[in-house]
Amino acid sequence: MSTLPSRQVVLARHIPRLPEPEHFRVERVDVGEPQDGELRVKTLFASVDPGTLARLGGVDSYAPALKLGEVIGSAAAGEVLESRDARYAVGDVVVGSWGWREHAVVSARGLRKVEPGAESVSAELGVLGIPGLTAYFGILDLGRPQAGDTVLVSSAAGAVGSISGQIAKRQGARAVGIAGGPEKCRWVVEALGFDACIDYRAEKDLAAAIRRECPQGVSVYLDNVGGSTLDAALTCMAMKGRVVVSGLVADYGVPPEARAGLKNTPFLIIQRLRMEGFVVFDYAARFGEARAELRRWLQDGSLRHREHIVDGLESAPAVFAGLFRGENFGRAVVRVA
Amino acid sequence: MSTLPSRQVVLARHIPRLPEPEHFRVERVDVGEPQDGELRVKTLFASVDPGTLARLGGVDSYAPALKLGEVIGSAAAGEVLESRDARYAVGDVVVGSWGWREHAVVSARGLRKVEPGAESVSAELGVLGIPGLTAYFGILDLGRPQAGDTVLVSSAAGAVGSISGQIAKRQGARAVGIAGGPEKCRWVVEALGFDACIDYRAEKDLAAAIRRECPQGVSVYLDNVGGSTLDAALTCMAMKGRVVVSGLVADYGVPPEARAGLKNTPFLIIQRLRMEGFVVFDYAARFGEARAELRRWLQDGSLRHREHIVDGLESAPAVFAGLFRGENFGRAVVRVA
Repeated sequence: MSTLPSRQVVLARHIPRLPEPEHFRVERVDVGEPQDGELRVKTLFASVDPGTLARLGGVDSYAPALKLGEVIGSAAAGEVLESRDARYAVGDVVVGSWGWREHAVVSARGLRKVEPGAESVSAELGVLGIPGLTAYFGILDLGRPQAGDTVLVSSAAGAVGSISGQIAKRQGARAVGIAGGPEKCRWVVEALGFDACIDYRAEKDLAAAIRRECPQGVSVYLDNVGGSTLDAALTCMAMKGRVVVSGLVADYGVPPEARAGLKNTPFLIIQRLRMEGFVVFDYAARFGEARAELRRWLQDGSLRHREHIVDGLESAPAVFAGLFRGENFGRAVVRVA
Repeated sequence: MSTLPSRQVVLARHIPRLPEPEHFRVERVDVGEPQDGELRVKTLFASVDPGTLARLGGVDSYAPALKLGEVIGSAAAGEVLESRDARYAVGDVVVGSWGWREHAVVSARGLRKVEPGAESVSAELGVLGIPGLTAYFGILDLGRPQAGDTVLVSSAAGAVGSISGQIAKRQGARAVGIAGGPEKCRWVVEALGFDACIDYRAEKDLAAAIRRECPQGVSVYLDNVGGSTLDAALTCMAMKGRVVVSGLVADYGVPPEARAGLKNTPFLIIQRLRMEGFVVFDYAARFGEARAELRRWLQDGSLRHREHIVDGLESAPAVFAGLFRGENFGRAVVRVA
């Protein structure tokens, strides 16, 4: 055996605020042979995830910052070309976190085998991957809505938000989304079954719009955005409401002094709120259970999802940049092979 | 019987930011006779409480805003002069919330009789009143420190902070205070037994000072201040730390757009923090139990407290203004008669 020519996308410059094409570089490399306990894989799909931005500014966040020249991290699904681990055979499809590479040699540890089955391989990076699991634990474990509660979800047409609202509905809650543009809002209500969706681009006063759509107050707010969206939602919470801080896209890569800052903290006291940040990897021991449940809901047709699939690894930076302009619809994934 | 001449302090002007003497007015009034179910009382002590500022800006907060001309609200302890309620007799000492008045006619509902005993009457407004109860439930119910945890407390020489740290110590935690000036810090460590106290006036970088005194990170932060102090503490929390938002003095009366704003919210995710606001009145059903416990600790000498007692109802506005310049030491109380 020999090396395999491959392409990969690396960090060319730290990203001070929002990503642009010049922050990335596509490189050609030769991928070597796997050693004991390793596999050589061909990437089928790579995820494009807004949370990655937190690692690209040169400052450690909940994950260490990427150094210049490092491959952009992401979840990926691929086919095993060669295996030096007894648990995996050539032709198996595995999910791991080797990032934006065409081919890779990866340790068999920390991989997950995708059983041939009903769902598409790309779904393993979306509704059955980190976004779906984030929605699952964010709503069920932290938000814990009761029947009749109102659950508000930002980025409601995104990978986490779209699943979160549907899980809230399963619990008997009213689900209200926030998304950008009439097309997304229509999809959130008509296809996903949310009770309402606020088009933040069409509203002058987001807090007033939230109050209009959530007249009983917001019992659970699953926040994927942070910044002024979170600040507006704080003023609309019901007594004893829970704010689940799942992502703060508005603040990723923004130095503290440049952030809008949360001004409505007195509502924490006024409404006795609980605001809790979480990282889904803390629930790793329960991923199997959650994934089985999500898969069941997909199979019985009660959970819907949508993927924004773009062809070609070299498209990944543009898709990534587009996330922050609200261009994606559902889970953004690049088809690599 | 007849009317009784009395003085009272009322709101003369809404307070835009910090209180000044011109925001208050001392009035002479005649207090009438009690009707059925009422008492006429002579105020012995009235509390001077920073949280009152939240009600004086003309905007509703966790309590409704005071209108111009209304008596400044506060807890008060007084002697019963006349009783039209079978549960109270002339000469009894009662605690209620009739505010800054020399004499008052008050409903017997919601009063509490002070049993003649070991503690001073003024203590019923401090360590055995709302501040002591706030410390009790804030630490034990929300913060829940374990042995070996580090508990950080702001306004550590204040009415809530000084008790909070001592309760944290009882639970086996390390207690670190934040207070203004070397004298307060010395008292917090030497008299109250905190492990350390940070003089925020002497520190250029408060976050660095917190990290220096809390090298294992802060497991529980009981915050009485908000603003930049809370923002600094957020960066110093241990994994899974709890921020108990007991008061946000820095933001009281400050319109949202003028607030510094919380910029370090990404630490909610990075450290998986829980931030929870509370109002001690929600625990009213358990006040008796808590007060008995606090009284026991006072009697066995394991809980210390200090009162900042000033004579004369007409001093109350100046003492109140002084709270926001950090002039008080322990619980601020005005001796009225």
